[in-house]
Amino acid sequence: MHVINQNHSSEVILGDDVFSTLEQFLSRQHRAYTVFILVDENTEKLCLSLFLSCIPSLKNAILLKIHSGEQNKNLASCESLWNQLSQHNADRHSLLINLGGGMIGDVGGFVAATFMRGISFVNVPTTLLAMVDASSGGKNGINLSGLKNQVGTFTNPLAVCISPLFLKTLPPRDIRAGFGELIKHALIADINYWKEIKAIRSLENVDWNPLIAKSVQIKRQIVNADFKEKNLRKTLNFGHTIGHALESYSMKHHQDPLKHGEAVAAGMVTELFLSVGIIGFPVSQMEAIVDFILLHFNLSELEFDIKEILSLISHDKKTVGKDTHFVLLKDIGYPVIHNQPEEQEIRDALQFTLNRFHQTTYTS
Amino acid sequence: MHVINQNHSSEVILGDDVFSTLEQFLSRQHRAYTVFILVDENTEKLCLSLFLSCIPSLKNAILLKIHSGEQNKNLASCESLWNQLSQHNADRHSLLINLGGGMIGDVGGFVAATFMRGISFVNVPTTLLAMVDASSGGKNGINLSGLKNQVGTFTNPLAVCISPLFLKTLPPRDIRAGFGELIKHALIADINYWKEIKAIRSLENVDWNPLIAKSVQIKRQIVNADFKEKNLRKTLNFGHTIGHALESYSMKHHQDPLKHGEAVAAGMVTELFLSVGIIGFPVSQMEAIVDFILLHFNLSELEFDIKEILSLISHDKKTVGKDTHFVLLKDIGYPVIHNQPEEQEIRDALQFTLNRFHQTTYTS
Repeated sequence: MHVINQNHSSEVILGDDVFSTLEQFLSRQHRAYTVFILVDENTEKLCLSLFLSCIPSLKNAILLKIHSGEQNKNLASCESLWNQLSQHNADRHSLLINLGGGMIGDVGGFVAATFMRGISFVNVPTTLLAMVDASSGGKNGINLSGLKNQVGTFTNPLAVCISPLFLKTLPPRDIRAGFGELIKHALIADINYWKEIKAIRSLENVDWNPLIAKSVQIKRQIVNADFKEKNLRKTLNFGHTIGHALESYSMKHHQDPLKHGEAVAAGMVTELFLSVGIIGFPVSQMEAIVDFILLHFNLSELEFDIKEILSLISHDKKTVGKDTHFVLLKDIGYPVIHNQPEEQEIRDALQFTLNRFHQTTYTS
Repeated sequence: MHVINQNHSSEVILGDDVFSTLEQFLSRQHRAYTVFILVDENTEKLCLSLFLSCIPSLKNAILLKIHSGEQNKNLASCESLWNQLSQHNADRHSLLINLGGGMIGDVGGFVAATFMRGISFVNVPTTLLAMVDASSGGKNGINLSGLKNQVGTFTNPLAVCISPLFLKTLPPRDIRAGFGELIKHALIADINYWKEIKAIRSLENVDWNPLIAKSVQIKRQIVNADFKEKNLRKTLNFGHTIGHALESYSMKHHQDPLKHGEAVAAGMVTELFLSVGIIGFPVSQMEAIVDFILLHFNLSELEFDIKEILSLISHDKKTVGKDTHFVLLKDIGYPVIHNQPEEQEIRDALQFTLNRFHQTTYTS
């Protein structure tokens, strides 16, 4: 069991006996106060009984429910939760446990950060993506009028409790989506970690524990140095400027939209191409990374309208004035925050991405 | 011109040439970024042209509007504002100026604190109450399902700009409402300030500048010592546990509901009575203070149902578990945070309050 404990931030509990550690932690922090557990219909079915069987003291916790899915990461879900908390007489010393993927953490975090001007919350991520990304770092938020995370706060959870047991509940596509963020952490921060990642040829028998620990460590180092994303933290957005636009596009146009990690994988391909053209990232490295991404992300049906993607980029939160910041790579482990490239450069990079993902269907 | 500048908190600009100070401050902090000004129909009519004429550089600011009144301090107003900000391409470096009373500051502060996870905002309070209370201290929030400030954050404005010029736009009742908070500051913190206040026999020709400065100073000392209201800051709630309940009651039952400062004045009478019975506040002092409050707050139509008030108290944010904290006074300047009194004690104190306010109609 590791506990990564850092000043001014939340405790991260990961490893094998996470639940007993969490139980002890809660008994120190929250004895006698009301505990609420937030789930969606998926985590209620697949994760809740496992969680409660491991932490018997939570059997009297009050269950709060919202519907799953990015389309429910909205104000209506928050209003419902705020009202449920009021109706159950939650007070400033109540605790909310967010049991679920990134969406549950984002909504539950925002609701907790704003209910009675802030109650404590603990994130228990159940997807690989949430374990390595959303559950720590303190960002929460909801979508508004089709724009992602338009409303939210920076508020750290009291603790993040990461158990690999939940990964067994996930379909392969969700494992892959989380894997996209692990690739990102390696590329922006650590060439040795990248070498370790690159050796993975199949996602079926991976020992996730050390990889999660490494990714969480990279993320927390960056976040602790720049909590409010003034500068360094922006490097975590590698793949995300394009990725968010692809995700918004896909949510609007596709019946089975891209998952966040899939959109980021495609976004990294686009931004690597830009990195080559603009700041000289080595072409051979780019080709190797793109091949590796294509090996795991066979998005042969990737489809988007380049003009609409360009317009979506201008609504990104990374936009300042009329300029959207892009994170490019000078080399692996050397991210650079760059002004918005020329429109033609972005068009070319998007076209490259489309071509490469479609190519895989012909060759594989 | 005074600038009260303290670490980790916002700049307070008050005195005579506040607008030129604010203009300089903004030109240092916010050149080239988009500025938004939030008003309601009252401040648009009564305050906006004065404000813009004093700060010509804001003539290109974008105006955002919501409807005035406590009943519009709700989620619908926030949603409208978040969407207006998006539509005008606000970004993380945009600035929101809240021009209005406490309601504008509360809603605008919450909207700014959560838009794109937080943009900067400046409060320009236009009521006496907002000048001495809501505009500094970092609390914001909205009402939900009839409960006051149920959703919000602790977020400091970049600056608070207090100009006595706006007081000329206020009806006498609003001046009186603000005066209630000045009385509170004196009673919880400073017997000399209380003596100064006590000498005021009419609110018509008061020089407000030094009183505002003193009240703001008292509030900020307390807030800086305890931003998140773990302990000391609770003393600012003197008069408010009962006051909030009276205000909620009045909003529900009366066509012309009590103003916040009026409810707090009545709340102070109730809580002084409790202070005498429970921790021995001197009776003669209580009588003198109650007489002074009655001199200025002739609430001869004060009416409430004691049972309903008791139920409203249990929904107060000062409630922890089943207990609501009360702020009582041991003496002037010596507040004590006390557990909830016995129900009969509260009933007696509420009855005393009703009797005293009704008495004034007979004797005055």
